[in-house]
Amino acid sequence: MENENLLKQISFIKEIDKIKYIQRRTKLFNSDRNENDAEHSWHLAMMTIVLAEHANEPVDVLKVLKMVLIHDIVEIDAGDTFIYDTVKDHSNTKEELIAAKRIFGMLPREQAEEFIAIWEEFEEGKTNEAKFARSMDRFEPLLQNASNKGGTWAEFNVDYQQVYDKKKVINDGSKAIWGYSENLLNDCVEKGILKK
Amino acid sequence: MENENLLKQISFIKEIDKIKYIQRRTKLFNSDRNENDAEHSWHLAMMTIVLAEHANEPVDVLKVLKMVLIHDIVEIDAGDTFIYDTVKDHSNTKEELIAAKRIFGMLPREQAEEFIAIWEEFEEGKTNEAKFARSMDRFEPLLQNASNKGGTWAEFNVDYQQVYDKKKVINDGSKAIWGYSENLLNDCVEKGILKK
Repeated sequence: MENENLLKQISFIKEIDKIKYIQRRTKLFNSDRNENDAEHSWHLAMMTIVLAEHANEPVDVLKVLKMVLIHDIVEIDAGDTFIYDTVKDHSNTKEELIAAKRIFGMLPREQAEEFIAIWEEFEEGKTNEAKFARSMDRFEPLLQNASNKGGTWAEFNVDYQQVYDKKKVINDGSKAIWGYSENLLNDCVEKGILKK
Repeated sequence: MENENLLKQISFIKEIDKIKYIQRRTKLFNSDRNENDAEHSWHLAMMTIVLAEHANEPVDVLKVLKMVLIHDIVEIDAGDTFIYDTVKDHSNTKEELIAAKRIFGMLPREQAEEFIAIWEEFEEGKTNEAKFARSMDRFEPLLQNASNKGGTWAEFNVDYQQVYDKKKVINDGSKAIWGYSENLLNDCVEKGILKK
């Protein structure tokens, strides 16, 4: 007799494989190969473990890990939206909520509710864990673009002020990482790979 | 004045991007596209969160997550070794230890020591956390091969007994997941995608 929970969980595990096909705009480090959502989520998880000591407030690392590991699963249905897209909101769209309910809803009820709540907490960005998780999500592509001669900033003609405005939320998660980021943005301007 | 720890950590974060280029033999679910180590590690992390309730003994989920997220980083230097390779040992080779020391050694000393210890604990497979992490690492490709008409079993002419012998360690991490796995292997034999 197989456990009903286990069967639901395995269906979910198979379903989320699709995240490996979701291409982001951002490229890997020093590369012209696009990153996919599974690779991105793994990298944010590693950054969380490595950088947690720099959080402004103590954070529950396990909760931050859950946030960064699941935050893009909704894109299986809703697709990736580019952060500098001026037409469509980057996050919290109605499609994403419907996606969260469908995909996390494949899990046993209690677990589905936990995952939806964690995803919503990340999207709202109010708790210490959500602030730190969101700072990781902003910091990775900053490092990638800096390594790729401006990357998506150059490709989509985005200037310093637009980048600064999107990235400054890093400060809510970690003042130390924001300090590093500001210096890196200034370096990028000096090198001519980000226009002011 | 930038924090010395932070600079070391960021160098490490850039270095481990290389894991995204390490191709495994196993293919994605219902696919002919090879999986890479970052995608694999992300999937094991998700499986850990979702399936932890089925561990034989209570596990520290954060520690299991650290294990599965970092377990393949050594392959940046040492390369992926195929589990059914009869010439080269799958794990714990000398090259992997040298790789662990070089790559984790980029981190601040205390963190480097923690990561090396966690990687060694995973490789030894003796603690409850390591047993469960290793069962996740064996279970994902089993699901993938079953979804791909035998996948690497068919491709490399591996039979039921060889698969059974490699997979039975799942039982040390989770009797429930091993029960499911045994049934799945029998199904594969019945369907003719795994020869007995």
